[in-house]
Amino acid sequence: MRAIEREVFGKVYLVGAGPGDPELLTLRAARLLARAEVVVYDHLVGPGILDLLPAGARRVYAGKEAGHHALPQEETNRLLIELAREGISVIRLKGGDPFIFGRGGEEMEALEAAGIACEIVPGITSAAGVGAYAGIPLTHRDHARTLIFTTGHLKDGSPDLDWPALARPQQTVVIYMGLGALAIICQRLIEHGLDPATPGVVVQSASTSAQRTVHASIAELPDAVRDAGLKSPSLIVIGPVTGLYRPERERECCIAARVVSVV
Amino acid sequence: MRAIEREVFGKVYLVGAGPGDPELLTLRAARLLARAEVVVYDHLVGPGILDLLPAGARRVYAGKEAGHHALPQEETNRLLIELAREGISVIRLKGGDPFIFGRGGEEMEALEAAGIACEIVPGITSAAGVGAYAGIPLTHRDHARTLIFTTGHLKDGSPDLDWPALARPQQTVVIYMGLGALAIICQRLIEHGLDPATPGVVVQSASTSAQRTVHASIAELPDAVRDAGLKSPSLIVIGPVTGLYRPERERECCIAARVVSVV
Repeated sequence: MRAIEREVFGKVYLVGAGPGDPELLTLRAARLLARAEVVVYDHLVGPGILDLLPAGARRVYAGKEAGHHALPQEETNRLLIELAREGISVIRLKGGDPFIFGRGGEEMEALEAAGIACEIVPGITSAAGVGAYAGIPLTHRDHARTLIFTTGHLKDGSPDLDWPALARPQQTVVIYMGLGALAIICQRLIEHGLDPATPGVVVQSASTSAQRTVHASIAELPDAVRDAGLKSPSLIVIGPVTGLYRPERERECCIAARVVSVV
Repeated sequence: MRAIEREVFGKVYLVGAGPGDPELLTLRAARLLARAEVVVYDHLVGPGILDLLPAGARRVYAGKEAGHHALPQEETNRLLIELAREGISVIRLKGGDPFIFGRGGEEMEALEAAGIACEIVPGITSAAGVGAYAGIPLTHRDHARTLIFTTGHLKDGSPDLDWPALARPQQTVVIYMGLGALAIICQRLIEHGLDPATPGVVVQSASTSAQRTVHASIAELPDAVRDAGLKSPSLIVIGPVTGLYRPERERECCIAARVVSVV
């Protein structure tokens, strides 16, 4: 019976849209978008990407921003299930990669529990977009052989992170969704022994025309970012590799024309 | 003078080829390949990807495999510089992402020192390919909010890793190029306090027709992988998220037909 049910249900594609530049979509993602019937997207998906949809495609906004979720996760899951039960194929489009801080796992589990087939299409995660478009290698034999991704989401007003693990010298720490907690993050890292002179960058809207980069030691980074007025979405990268950042490289080498560095 | 020199030099594009499936190339990478004059590629770039090159493109193999480097890094750098000085545009094509364990940083620095412009094109890193094609979310609110990438390269016959940082329970550890050190890695993690029942997977050639997955506790993983005869390139993923692995999902949901699970 299950097999027959599945045939009348639509399939859900959990698709990574990458960091912003539509050129960073995968071929697979671009092909799926070009024939999409309905797309459920979040706020990290740029408008240039939605331009790839066919004129008649339905667009449903389910984006979450810090503080104001458009749809709670459970409602998004329910929406995907309802759409698939209408028999149409559904593109669930997420910024970055669906399985790296994208809650794609939770959506996959909900879909499976409802007997709906899904396919995961990976995307360029924001960290890789920042590395390429700001000209900062995330790993480097001389500077960092370990790369850590974590989130700056607040729990009871404070980020709930494993500070001793993050405050080690020869590694790269990437913090997603951490802009609001930047001052606390830098302070805690220093309290846990990371050299205040350790370099870091905060990159806003990497790979889009709104890309802006602030580069400073972690002691100075919060003030520099506040003075520059960076907004979400911004990615924080801390560690010796960010000492390789050079504004002239960002301008000249990294798909230059669209990028503005503020330091 | 510098500006004039640059005009006659070719530009070098450091391009990520993704984990293997040509459908996971970015649009940018696919466009660059379709008009390439010369491509310098490594062993992690699949043949299906090189099929996208124009018939007349020069192909130069510079791939490195554990133990037998085709070209030492310095020779690869020199080759890229020489080709660019011939005035042609050069695609330096790397498996995964050029800035995540790809030595792209070293090549970028060498090119800049030689006055040659370069552009970085990010790629889907192998970990994201494994997550999507094996159906394992790399992060999950219930299981892991931190994701660590490191390498299993041996130093004096033993992997030189930060064991206490890796042997923590609620995180995902991804080890690139670690197949040869799998037994030592699992042993050290257990010695440093990680529960021997912690699940892990090893995924060979993710996203290609040679994809094979072995799933076991870290106590049993080395024997299971040896019995299955997995070969390089394989990625190791350890942590509670790998407990979500289900062979039937890998077969049904994750671009099914091409994938063989051995557990």
